Formats: sequence, structure tokens, C-alpha cells
Amino acid sequence: MLLSTRGNMSYAKISVLAFFTIIMIGTFLLSLPISSKSGEFTPFIDALFTATSATCVTGLVVYDTYNHFSVFGQIVILGLIQIGGLGFMIIATMFLLALRKRIGIKERGLLKDSVNSIHIGGVVRLTKHIIVGTFIFEGIAAIILAIIFNREMEISASIFNGIFHSISAFCNAGFDLMGRFNEYSSLTRYSNDTVMNIVILTLITIGGIGFIVWEDIYRHRHKFKYYQLHTKIVLCTTLFLILCSSILFYMLEANNLLENISVKEKILSSLFHAISPRTAGFNTVDTTSLSEGSKLLTIILMVIGGNSGSTAGGIKTTTFVVLILSVISSVRYSDELNIFGRRLEYNIIKRASSVITIYISSALVAMILISLIQPELVLSDIIFEVFSAIGTVGLSTGITSSLTTLSKLIIIILMFCGRIGSLAVVMAVAHNKKNTLVKSPIEKIIIG
Amino acid sequence: MLLSTRGNMSYAKISVLAFFTIIMIGTFLLSLPISSKSGEFTPFIDALFTATSATCVTGLVVYDTYNHFSVFGQIVILGLIQIGGLGFMIIATMFLLALRKRIGIKERGLLKDSVNSIHIGGVVRLTKHIIVGTFIFEGIAAIILAIIFNREMEISASIFNGIFHSISAFCNAGFDLMGRFNEYSSLTRYSNDTVMNIVILTLITIGGIGFIVWEDIYRHRHKFKYYQLHTKIVLCTTLFLILCSSILFYMLEANNLLENISVKEKILSSLFHAISPRTAGFNTVDTTSLSEGSKLLTIILMVIGGNSGSTAGGIKTTTFVVLILSVISSVRYSDELNIFGRRLEYNIIKRASSVITIYISSALVAMILISLIQPELVLSDIIFEVFSAIGTVGLSTGITSSLTTLSKLIIIILMFCGRIGSLAVVMAVAHNKKNTLVKSPIEKIIIG
Ligand SMILES: [K+]
Ligand SMILES: [K+]
Repeated sequence: MLLSTRGNMSYAKISVLAFFTIIMIGTFLLSLPISSKSGEFTPFIDALFTATSATCVTGLVVYDTYNHFSVFGQIVILGLIQIGGLGFMIIATMFLLALRKRIGIKERGLLKDSVNSIHIGGVVRLTKHIIVGTFIFEGIAAIILAIIFNREMEISASIFNGIFHSISAFCNAGFDLMGRFNEYSSLTRYSNDTVMNIVILTLITIGGIGFIVWEDIYRHRHKFKYYQLHTKIVLCTTLFLILCSSILFYMLEANNLLENISVKEKILSSLFHAISPRTAGFNTVDTTSLSEGSKLLTIILMVIGGNSGSTAGGIKTTTFVVLILSVISSVRYSDELNIFGRRLEYNIIKRASSVITIYISSALVAMILISLIQPELVLSDIIFEVFSAIGTVGLSTGITSSLTTLSKLIIIILMFCGRIGSLAVVMAVAHNKKNTLVKSPIEKIIIG
Repeated sequence: MLLSTRGNMSYAKISVLAFFTIIMIGTFLLSLPISSKSGEFTPFIDALFTATSATCVTGLVVYDTYNHFSVFGQIVILGLIQIGGLGFMIIATMFLLALRKRIGIKERGLLKDSVNSIHIGGVVRLTKHIIVGTFIFEGIAAIILAIIFNREMEISASIFNGIFHSISAFCNAGFDLMGRFNEYSSLTRYSNDTVMNIVILTLITIGGIGFIVWEDIYRHRHKFKYYQLHTKIVLCTTLFLILCSSILFYMLEANNLLENISVKEKILSSLFHAISPRTAGFNTVDTTSLSEGSKLLTIILMVIGGNSGSTAGGIKTTTFVVLILSVISSVRYSDELNIFGRRLEYNIIKRASSVITIYISSALVAMILISLIQPELVLSDIIFEVFSAIGTVGLSTGITSSLTTLSKLIIIILMFCGRIGSLAVVMAVAHNKKNTLVKSPIEKIIIG
């Protein structure tokens, strides 16, 4: 998305700076004695880790949030999640709309039909829309969650927990306060609770689908064929991924984690673990006991991630679709990428391949560094942790708290880069556009 | 490489069929009692596995070659390696030259400078060149290796071993007969033998660099600037990968496998394990004891692989370079891929991204299937084994012989597809070229 907008360099820089500032303020607040239950200072690196994880809505934790942090600390974390999640969604959406508006104007004369259907009436209105929408969704969910929590908690705690988990789920943060029952247990306690599962999964999905898609659905209701191409692709891919992954998860865990539970719980858990790894990061089964196949499936889902302009991370569903379309187009000897009766601009392949190349290379470099620093860690755990960090997912096979300071720093950088978008970071660094007026002669090489 | 040549469908089909026939004949011969030391029939699936591994020059084994197979069986394996390796190189080279010739004619009028400099005087001459070149290299190496082996073996055995390992190394097959000393030991016995290391590494490198590059070097000697772009990229990338990987391997194993050995052996081993995973598949240190970081490094090298038109597998160095160039071009907001003062055709990005997407997806599907079939296997071992098979490398962390029939079948298919080229296989299946005369309207989507 960022690559085609030349004028946005300073915009990207401002975003990076804003995130950095918020993280620094968060780190300061979280390191104070008032933020911890014990009343002691929290080490800088751990406060930085937690603040980055919250602001980048990752959800990886070096401490159990409930047991280490005081209510004040928990509120700071919640604030960072809301600012980070909502802020990112607003910045990303405005970015995308500005981009789309320019496209619309350029092509309006040529193809009326494919002109962008969004016309923004200004930044303020847009921001208001997103904020109001977010608060409505979060509010309703918070009330339902509070009622569920009220079964086991007093009224004030259940309200706080309702709000906390509602925001955390909507922003795809994956932070939880379930340490009051069991350390690092996430939502495993509620694996059989239908309402809880539905509410959390709905929040994750709405938050992860992105504002641009909401608006399109809101505008055209159930009339699929009037949707923008982007919306169509996002909806179909999301549905496809959820269906395939939940069936696959069920098959991979049938003789393991799903062995001795009711059919209802099997279905809920499979659905949960098909949706949650694509950025949310909650879990209702014990992640450390996942079968090797499910670990791999989870890693794949973490890499694919959610949708552009949402609270989600990963390479994004559209990038995934473009890569598949480019294979189909190659196999058919076609020069075009066609989908839903529309053609994608050819240039998008370069962007998709750049996104995936940068994404995977950064992850691989991080993995090699961590295994150099801590040779005692198991490879599959490192792969899982790294993709969880760069995809801002937050699931872990349990090695987070055993990371050394240097490894933690690598994970912090990955969370930050994963959030800001590997490309934006590179873009902010690379200053000068090289205008090659004299083109070099073409020469062929052989690949594949 | 295959995607841009429309008329080659039947050619690809013939190649697939030829390979399949050779494998079937090999399977039949290897399953006979005369092929085994025990004088008993070898199970079909294991004979098929061995024949595929030999013909596709992979080197994964379900039996220790020396201890299970009789001399007749070993000669069959050697024959399959030579036919598979040489045959593939000849087919690939002719394919590439036909492609390049057409390019040359098309562009000669436009850009004299970038016209391809290879003019083939006919298929027969070319084939003769490759065969003669191969036999000269293999012959010289066989003599040197025989002299080394003669220290520990009688004269006939050392000659046979010299020939066997020379062919196996040149074809990047990775099969060995070192089971006479220690089962599945590969070349670990010679980790400190400088001559042995140099001979094997030279064979691997020459075999893996491809005929097109040899010819270019032969023609222009040391004058780098007269080389074709393809040659320049291949040489620089190969050098870069060897340097970086050997330093990294040294760092990752300094406190593990390389701890208590001489400096000379440290250097030799690091060099060996930087070169061998890019398709050769021999090892001079115990692969099962690699540190987690080295396993990852080895996997990365296995995926990158060797060069187009050589005996090597993987996505190929040029694909790797194109992916990196596309990132550089994206970051610079450039619409071009420039390298060594030349511009690459834009279309190559689609081919590169298709190659890597098909490659990684097939590997991931295979991994999930194997972990469904054998949930007891460790994820990193499965990842290692699958990439070893599809990249026709042949290194293993030791799980090959514990694979079930179904898993073996998956590995067999991977070895076959990895060799034929995932794309060629798909191409042979996809019959009809879709000529979209009416173009659909363009619509933008957002990625990344
Ligand atoms: K998350
Ligand atoms: K090999």
C-alpha cells in the first residue's frame, strides 16, 4: 500500500514517531512502582517490551498481566492498546483513502465503472466515524462480557474485565487478565462458553476486517455485486481461510487437545483457533501443547494475517491473494491478474512480492540472531515466536519469559516493524527517489 | 524459465515422462534380490524411494546405500544418478538456449548490446560438449578420490568408490558408500582431509553452476565485464552466499560441533556446510547434532538452491536475486529492476514470485500432511526433511527411515516435483492457453 504513494514520506515518518513516542510514555509509566502489584520498579527492558506489545497490539507478554501489574498498570496497558489499535486503524484508513481518492480522480475519465466509490468529507468526519463505530462495538461487547464475568467476579471487577477484554479483542491485542484464575491461561477457562466465544470472535473479526470494508458493507448491505473489488476479495478470503483452517485444526488436534471434550467445545475451539492466529492472539486451548501440525498451521495463519486498514498484522489477505493470482496467471501464460471480472494493475505483483520478501527475510534474520544468542531454544519455538511478534499476533509456545535482554530487544523491534509495516520503515529511511531518466538496456536472465 | 516459452508444453511432458520411465526401471531393478546384499526382495515403496532419490539426484535414503544394496544395486543407483543428473542438465540447457536464441533474434535489431551471445550449432554438438565436459571433470576427480580411498581400501574398491563419489558429487546427488565405515555417516570421516574437501566442493560447485555459465567463462576467460548478465549474477550470488553462509555456520557451531577441532578443520567444515546444502547434500559434520540456528541456515540455503540449467535444485539463485531486486526497486519507488548496468524485463518479477509461491506452498502442504500422518515427528525435522526433498538436497536430521509408507510417498512426490520444476509439472497439466482478447476493467486493491 505504501509503495505507490510518493508524497507520503513525511506522513510515514510522523506515524513512526507518534508510535515511538506513545511507546516511550507507556514504558515510563509501566516501569513506575505504581504500575506493579509488588510496588517495585519494573526493569526497563520488560516495561519497554510490555509497552511495545500493547501499543503494537501484539499481546506477547514477559509477565502475566494480572499478576504483575497493578490496576493502574493494567489501565495504562489498556490505554496503550486503545490508542495503538484505534490510532493505527485511523492512520491506515486515511492513508488508504487518500491513495484511493487519487486513483479515483485519475481513472474516472477512463473507466467509470471502476472508480472508487468512497468520497471522504474530510478527515474529521472519517475519524469520528471510526471512533464512534469502535466505541459502539466495544461498548455492546463489554456489557455482554461483564455479565459473563459477573458469574465469577464481583461487579466492579467484572465491569473492568468486560471493558478490558472487549477493547483487547476489538483491537486484536490479545492481552488478558485471566491470570487471576491461572497464570498465562488466556481464555482457556471459557473454551466451552458459546456466548463468550461468539462475542470474542465477532470482536476480532470486526476489528480485523478494516474500516474500508465496513463502510462498503454498510453502504451496499447484502448486495455482494455492488461491493468494491477490495471488499469482495477480503470477504471471500476471510471466509475461505476460516473454513479451511478450522477443519484442518480439527483434524490436527482430533487425537490431541480435542480428544476428550464435547462436540460443541470441539467446534468452538476449532473455530477459535482458525480465527485467533490471524492477529488476535487469544487462545482457548493450551498453546504449549499444540500438535506439531497445528503449530505449523498457526504459523501460516500468523504470516497471512488480517486485512489492510484494520487493527490486524501479517502480510495481509490481499497480498496473499495477489501471490496466488500471479501463480494462476503464470500457469495460464496470461499477462493479467483477473478476479471477479476485474483486472488488477500489473504493478501490484511487485508490491506483493516485495512485502512477502521483506517480511520473511526480516523474520529469518531475527530467527538466526535469536538462535545465535540463545542456542538452547528449540527451532520451532523460535519460528513461532518470531512470526507471532512480526505479525503482532501474540501467541507463544511459552518461551517469551525465558528470552534474554538481547532477544527481547529483537522481539520488540519485530513487533514495532510488524506494526508500522516493514515497508513504511524502509521508506522512512530511504530518502531520495532515484529518477532514472536514462534507461539501461534490457537483458534477460533465467529464473526458476 | 518455463513460463515464457509457450511452445514447449509437449517438451515438458516428454521430460516428465522420460524421468518417470527411468525411475520405474530403476525401481524394478532395485527391488530385485540381486540388488540387495541380503539377496532378498526390497519392498516396492523403498525401491521407488531410492530410485526417485537417485534419478532426481536428491540423496535422501531409507537404507544405508553400502549396507543394504549389493554392488549391482550400487551400480544401478550410480547409473540413475548419472542419467538423471546429466540428462536433466542437457534438457535444461537446451531448453534455456532455445529460449535465449529466440530472445536474441527478437531483440537483435533493437539493442545490439544485449543480444544473447550464445549461438548453438545444433543439439548434437551441445550435448557432446556437456557430456565430454562432465566426463573430464568426473574422470580427473575420480582418480584423485581413488588415491585417497586407497589408503583404507583395496585397489578395486577404491576405484569404484572414486568413481561413485565423483559422479555423486558432480551431479549434486549426495549418495555415498561410507556405510562401510559407519552407517549413514556421509563424508564425516574426511572432515579434516583438505584434498578430499577441495575435490568434492569443486565437483559440487562445477556441477551446480550450470553449462551456460561454464560456456560463458570458457569463452571470455577472466574478463568479467564481457560475461552475460546471467553469468555475472550467478557468480556474484554464489560467491556472496558461500562467504556469508560459511561465516554464519562457523558462528552458529563455534560452541557446538566445531568446538574441539583444529582451525583447519573448522574452516573446511564451515566452507563445506555453506556449499553442500545448496543441493549437494553431503555432510562432513553430524547433521543430527546441528545447532538449531544451523538447521535454519541450512533450510534457507536448501530453499535458495543452485543455478538454472545445472544439476542443482531449489528456487535458484537468479530467482532469489530477482526477489531482492524487486524489494530494492520498491523501496526506491523505481519501476525498474537494474543490476550491473542492465535492466531486467519487468515480467520476471511475476515469474519469480510464482516460483517462490508454488515452491513454498507445496512444501507447506507436504509438511501439514506429514504431521497429520505422523504426529509424533518434531516440526523442525519435518520442515528440514521437506525442504531437503523438494530442493533435491538430501540432507536429513535422521527421520527418513522412520517415515511411514504414506509419508515416503509424499517425499517421493516432492523429490520428483522439485526436480522437474514445480512449474513444469503444473504446465504439463494446464493444457489450454486462455487468450483474453477482451480485457476486464482495471480496479485497484490494497496490499501490504
Ligand atoms: K495480537
Ligand atoms: K542432492
